[in-house]
Amino acid sequence: MKESTKTNASNYVSAAVIVIGDEILSGRTQDTNSRHIALRLGEIGIQLGDIRVVPDREDKIISAVNEMRTAHSYVFTTGGIGPTHDDITAACIAKAFNQNFLRNEWAYKKLLAHYGEENLTDARIRMAMMPENVEIIENIVSGAPGFKIENVYVMAGVPKIMEAMMDAILPTLKGGDIIHSETVPCPFPESQIASFLADLQKETPEVSIGSYPHLKDGKLGVNIVLRSANTQKLTSAASILKTYLENGGPTRT
Amino acid sequence: MKESTKTNASNYVSAAVIVIGDEILSGRTQDTNSRHIALRLGEIGIQLGDIRVVPDREDKIISAVNEMRTAHSYVFTTGGIGPTHDDITAACIAKAFNQNFLRNEWAYKKLLAHYGEENLTDARIRMAMMPENVEIIENIVSGAPGFKIENVYVMAGVPKIMEAMMDAILPTLKGGDIIHSETVPCPFPESQIASFLADLQKETPEVSIGSYPHLKDGKLGVNIVLRSANTQKLTSAASILKTYLENGGPTRT
Repeated sequence: MKESTKTNASNYVSAAVIVIGDEILSGRTQDTNSRHIALRLGEIGIQLGDIRVVPDREDKIISAVNEMRTAHSYVFTTGGIGPTHDDITAACIAKAFNQNFLRNEWAYKKLLAHYGEENLTDARIRMAMMPENVEIIENIVSGAPGFKIENVYVMAGVPKIMEAMMDAILPTLKGGDIIHSETVPCPFPESQIASFLADLQKETPEVSIGSYPHLKDGKLGVNIVLRSANTQKLTSAASILKTYLENGGPTRT
Repeated sequence: MKESTKTNASNYVSAAVIVIGDEILSGRTQDTNSRHIALRLGEIGIQLGDIRVVPDREDKIISAVNEMRTAHSYVFTTGGIGPTHDDITAACIAKAFNQNFLRNEWAYKKLLAHYGEENLTDARIRMAMMPENVEIIENIVSGAPGFKIENVYVMAGVPKIMEAMMDAILPTLKGGDIIHSETVPCPFPESQIASFLADLQKETPEVSIGSYPHLKDGKLGVNIVLRSANTQKLTSAASILKTYLENGGPTRT
């Protein structure tokens, strides 16, 4: 079942990110790829519905890929496509799709052109090993290309390389309705505006209203974020909220 | 089935983090809670095996909680326990455990003490609504407490509050073997040391060897990270690697 929506998008397209790597799970590395992908997809009307971080373990990678690729229109993986022994993503994707894992001649030619024959070591040739039926995702930063297989996009883990791959992928995706958002800073504690927000949410089901507290200088602040594919409903709901807050909100007598 | 290990921990304890919130999936907010939890758990010998980010949607929260709590010794959720309509975590946890969802008198007393009777609005009282059989996780930063139900710890999403809750939780957890790590910067490209690393990994299966490229000033650098519960094996493998690199690594003639 594809993801549904509460943001009034009639053409709702969802995606998942699978971050592959022990280094994220150990806390050694802060993942920033998911957020970058979320923001880029949002630009073209694709909504992230799941992020999963899994270790460099075959069973976990395969099950995440197979679960996510049926649940979402698109899946993006990052990490594990380099030349070392711990780079097992490509082989796992082949297994997930029940495809042969073999040298992709296009990728091989790309690597040959990038490194030159004298530097094309066995380890580098390993980066041309892919499932049988893929399209190459070019890597203009370093040599190793990513690939696309059905609705799964297999990308590098190094942020700059992943970002360049996303640049290449983005124009090829079919987006849906763009979800617009408006952020309204709120000078009152969440609990004081909770019932007003709940009513506003009930009255405007086409707009998803989120309340996000944050701590600054020891004090809780709140941002209200309204999101909808319908700009008119969005503007109207935001305007009701702002008028309420400007008129004293919960303190109005 | 509980997670297994490749780091030679005979007493391997694993955990999962479930980040709950549309704001992470939209890219509006960068999640940093997972990494904090990973690092704190690592200190006491608990290894993160999964991170999942799910939207504020009942079915997704319930299935993630139920899947993760059987797969791992501990599960930590962040987000969605505030007073507003979009805070649905506590109610979802009750459903996941098939328990009644009712006012927790201990939590209620805490909120009463924190806010005072005149300020204990309906919205705030909502933060005392919890599954039937929980233990309270105190919140010394703001009013709303978290709770523990079986092996699931339900925490706030605001980082400072979540961190304070982790401080309170940590001494109550039963950790396993601590995984020690050593990071060795590598002056050669990954592909040039790949076969050496693969051999080293084969020879020392008790040590998990990861190779992590990064881009700095347009150049790819590499860190080799060795991890093991066995400090002797770890030191020995790291020493073999360092000797190899110091002696010219792949360029040695």
